[in-house]
Amino acid sequence: MRIGIVARLDMVETIELAEELIDFFISKNVEVALDTSLVNELGSFHERSADIKDMDVDIIVAIGGDGTILRTQKFVNGKKIPLFGINMGTVGFLTEIDPEDTLSAMEEVLAGNYFVERRTQLRVCHDGELPSALNEVVMMTRMPAKMLHIEISVDDEVVEELRADGLIVATPSGSTAYSMSAGGPIVDPRVEAFIIVPICPFKLAARPIVVSNQSKIKVKLLRKGKKAIAVIDGQFEEEINYMDEVIFKKSDTFAYFVRLTKDFYKRVREKLTEGGITS
Amino acid sequence: MRIGIVARLDMVETIELAEELIDFFISKNVEVALDTSLVNELGSFHERSADIKDMDVDIIVAIGGDGTILRTQKFVNGKKIPLFGINMGTVGFLTEIDPEDTLSAMEEVLAGNYFVERRTQLRVCHDGELPSALNEVVMMTRMPAKMLHIEISVDDEVVEELRADGLIVATPSGSTAYSMSAGGPIVDPRVEAFIIVPICPFKLAARPIVVSNQSKIKVKLLRKGKKAIAVIDGQFEEEINYMDEVIFKKSDTFAYFVRLTKDFYKRVREKLTEGGITS
Amino acid sequence: MRIGIVARLDMVETIELAEELIDFFISKNVEVALDTSLVNELGSFHERSADIKDMDVDIIVAIGGDGTILRTQKFVNGKKIPLFGINMGTVGFLTEIDPEDTLSAMEEVLAGNYFVERRTQLRVCHDGELPSALNEVVMMTRMPAKMLHIEISVDDEVVEELRADGLIVATPSGSTAYSMSAGGPIVDPRVEAFIIVPICPFKLAARPIVVSNQSKIKVKLLRKGKKAIAVIDGQFEEEINYMDEVIFKKSDTFAYFVRLTKDFYKRVREKLTEGGITS
Amino acid sequence: MRIGIVARLDMVETIELAEELIDFFISKNVEVALDTSLVNELGSFHERSADIKDMDVDIIVAIGGDGTILRTQKFVNGKKIPLFGINMGTVGFLTEIDPEDTLSAMEEVLAGNYFVERRTQLRVCHDGELPSALNEVVMMTRMPAKMLHIEISVDDEVVEELRADGLIVATPSGSTAYSMSAGGPIVDPRVEAFIIVPICPFKLAARPIVVSNQSKIKVKLLRKGKKAIAVIDGQFEEEINYMDEVIFKKSDTFAYFVRLTKDFYKRVREKLTEGGITS
Repeated sequence: MRIGIVARLDMVETIELAEELIDFFISKNVEVALDTSLVNELGSFHERSADIKDMDVDIIVAIGGDGTILRTQKFVNGKKIPLFGINMGTVGFLTEIDPEDTLSAMEEVLAGNYFVERRTQLRVCHDGELPSALNEVVMMTRMPAKMLHIEISVDDEVVEELRADGLIVATPSGSTAYSMSAGGPIVDPRVEAFIIVPICPFKLAARPIVVSNQSKIKVKLLRKGKKAIAVIDGQFEEEINYMDEVIFKKSDTFAYFVRLTKDFYKRVREKLTEGGITS
Repeated sequence: MRIGIVARLDMVETIELAEELIDFFISKNVEVALDTSLVNELGSFHERSADIKDMDVDIIVAIGGDGTILRTQKFVNGKKIPLFGINMGTVGFLTEIDPEDTLSAMEEVLAGNYFVERRTQLRVCHDGELPSALNEVVMMTRMPAKMLHIEISVDDEVVEELRADGLIVATPSGSTAYSMSAGGPIVDPRVEAFIIVPICPFKLAARPIVVSNQSKIKVKLLRKGKKAIAVIDGQFEEEINYMDEVIFKKSDTFAYFVRLTKDFYKRVREKLTEGGITS
Repeated sequence: MRIGIVARLDMVETIELAEELIDFFISKNVEVALDTSLVNELGSFHERSADIKDMDVDIIVAIGGDGTILRTQKFVNGKKIPLFGINMGTVGFLTEIDPEDTLSAMEEVLAGNYFVERRTQLRVCHDGELPSALNEVVMMTRMPAKMLHIEISVDDEVVEELRADGLIVATPSGSTAYSMSAGGPIVDPRVEAFIIVPICPFKLAARPIVVSNQSKIKVKLLRKGKKAIAVIDGQFEEEINYMDEVIFKKSDTFAYFVRLTKDFYKRVREKLTEGGITS
Repeated sequence: MRIGIVARLDMVETIELAEELIDFFISKNVEVALDTSLVNELGSFHERSADIKDMDVDIIVAIGGDGTILRTQKFVNGKKIPLFGINMGTVGFLTEIDPEDTLSAMEEVLAGNYFVERRTQLRVCHDGELPSALNEVVMMTRMPAKMLHIEISVDDEVVEELRADGLIVATPSGSTAYSMSAGGPIVDPRVEAFIIVPICPFKLAARPIVVSNQSKIKVKLLRKGKKAIAVIDGQFEEEINYMDEVIFKKSDTFAYFVRLTKDFYKRVREKLTEGGITS
């Protein structure tokens, strides 16, 4: 088995855990590839350095929060390399374990006691194809406290026209992230659906909408002169102009995750509590 | 073509429209069967009288609101007889046309210019099988302002435990009905999902949950001595005792509707506006 | 100083704490009056027995949850006897201390190290005057899943007409109780206001409304044949018929509470967390 | 009587209505002062030109939407000059009449058939005093989809600590504006209160809070490196740095409005409907 390792670099603890992991894998004679920026930070293991997008490994271990996972997925997208997240961020819905369980969990992984979960992604088009979204695409005004005027269509049928601060189009994976803050429902990842959630709509009757992931979702900016920005998974930004359309469909590519257990709802409850989201 | 006709009987207008429809169909040499209670109200057409559940027809025209449709569906459930609703109720998300369009719409139907839409139902079990739900099952306390203590499981995994006035388990069809009042999202009927919505939860973090319709949803009453009532589609009531479980699955039977157009969202917007729900 | 003691009687722990308190006060030569039903439960102290409404005391100590406080307040209403709540219920926003702090808190009280907080109540009229509400009045349908048709006026101006499961008119004290479950805001008790919150409104634009407590709020049942029930503080029920009006004003009487500290928001946060309301 | 006139300048209709009004007032021998920028746009009436802040008039007529009113109020703040708004914007909660009623309404005003309503404002301090807010102060991240970490105190008691897109502190006047989009309650302007509403809180238990307008509200940015922007009434922007505090109190100055009728709730209902906010 070959393992790739990536880590967020702005915390001492993630670097230390990466070193511990490297030692562990080497002691187990597991082939290890390390993200180039991590190698630079460590100042050693240069012979194991690799760009994430070129890693030829069976699993990538990502040490950090959901941001680290989302960023890593952008690089491996299109390949069937599952990610294994160790949560050292504030939330970590996409991560699988907490740091203190790292070595015992890796033993399980090396013994093959895991399964791979596939998660649906959003394909995003605006003057050509943008990176796919694992969690969500947020369309927001560039100017705080100025509303966008938005038209939403599903399969070429106009669903809603509204003024709002912005709009979220999310996958079920993203339903426990930003979409939830904006009032969206929790959607089980087994549901073949996307979620459309307006952000602070100036229309009291606006509601979150759950649509089939076989649908084509079109979002159009109506108001003259207002620019918006589309942010994909908090990682990638694209400017959207007046009368522009952004198209969302189910992506041909998926994100893959190493899972030790199947319990989705237990995870959600724990993450909500750990992350201080409920209390 | 054979047509069945049912109508709510507490409005003069529905009876009059039924008479007009009967005359129209007779003039077109269409075979007509009339709900027995409607025949009694009309005082004529006794030879065409039939119980809804025994009607051997191609389509049943239901004159009334969503309540009339839901009640009729209970009788024809298990057969593949599509319903065609003429809206004379306050809302009518399940109805297809407004009364003024009745005859022109019937011309279209007789000419075969329609399609049949299939809607998923909820199978409900509690000490044996209860009637299937087209819209929703509401579990409520029998005593106003006294909370239930509820445990919700999906596929035998506990999802949530909460105190609340009640709980709604809804189909996508029901997402624009009671579920919406309780804060649930609008769910496109093409999404293979059910919605779980707590009613006035005394738990600020409680959120609507959208689960796969392949799941088994289990709702258990935890608090000693508190009785609840389960109301299916506003039509059928069942008493639920302390520690009882109610099980929800996708039903083997569907509801069928005659549709002249495919535009789901236009219908939702119109119904919301007509019904005074938005303003 | 003379102290009255009341307790909920369905828990062994409250009775035991009452006995401990009685011994404590007797040892301190404090005059003690005991609720008759508590004396019956204890089987002793008959010479100290008194009806709550006749207690001639400086403070009443109430052992239980918010229900115990609300019930006790109904009996002492109109007198300026402050209540001191020891929380042995599920929530206890109106109580001041947890049971383990009882004796040290009582030392403080006997030493005069406390202040008295005054809370506004709602005067409720429907064919004569009903008991005042410290927390809220809930108007609900008697039949689960059947909506009421309600007209709300403030100072004789119609504010809203809607169909809903019910309606809450709450004081700031009640803003952290049932009103919060139905989506109402938290209102600081220093704000001279009442809150009007619809319960599951079938009108997406309906919002909680905060009105001056100098206003006259009028709620009228519009739909023929539908009966409702008004529940005052979860303690008192009154039937409301079609076309009946219920009038709400600021009450001339207040509820008084013994407080050891002034921190309202700390209390709210703690109660929300302790009561499992947030997690 | 002396009348000042201001108008938004980006619509032909407002300029035309301004001209009509000027002619009307001149024909009535009413002394008229015109905003300098309006005079420039008209290309005439130079002798009547005045800066808004220097206008020595009894009433200022503002032609436009709420933005025009809010901008004008910033200039006259501290004086007791009431504004009379003619609604030519999208919403116009602060305006009094629609354009077609202009001349008949002015006849009423000239005849003295009006009263002046006083509205409370927020005093805002951050490294010195900022302009007072008639509607609200919005604190937002400068980077879309990045959360702020906020601590809120009321009278030096910590009320809430949360991560969110932003926070609104609003007056009752602002309760039907941006605060409403973010989920805040409608607050009658007669209530002596301010509203604190988190924007997309990543904390499910967060709720809008209504506090006394005698309170001191303190908002502190906790997270290192994150900058925020405070926007006052959509007109004035101030940058807020990490660990900065912004203090909100009741302002010593008020906004004054010419009113022909007293019906607050009718106005709210009409504005919500006209503005397409409900449907």
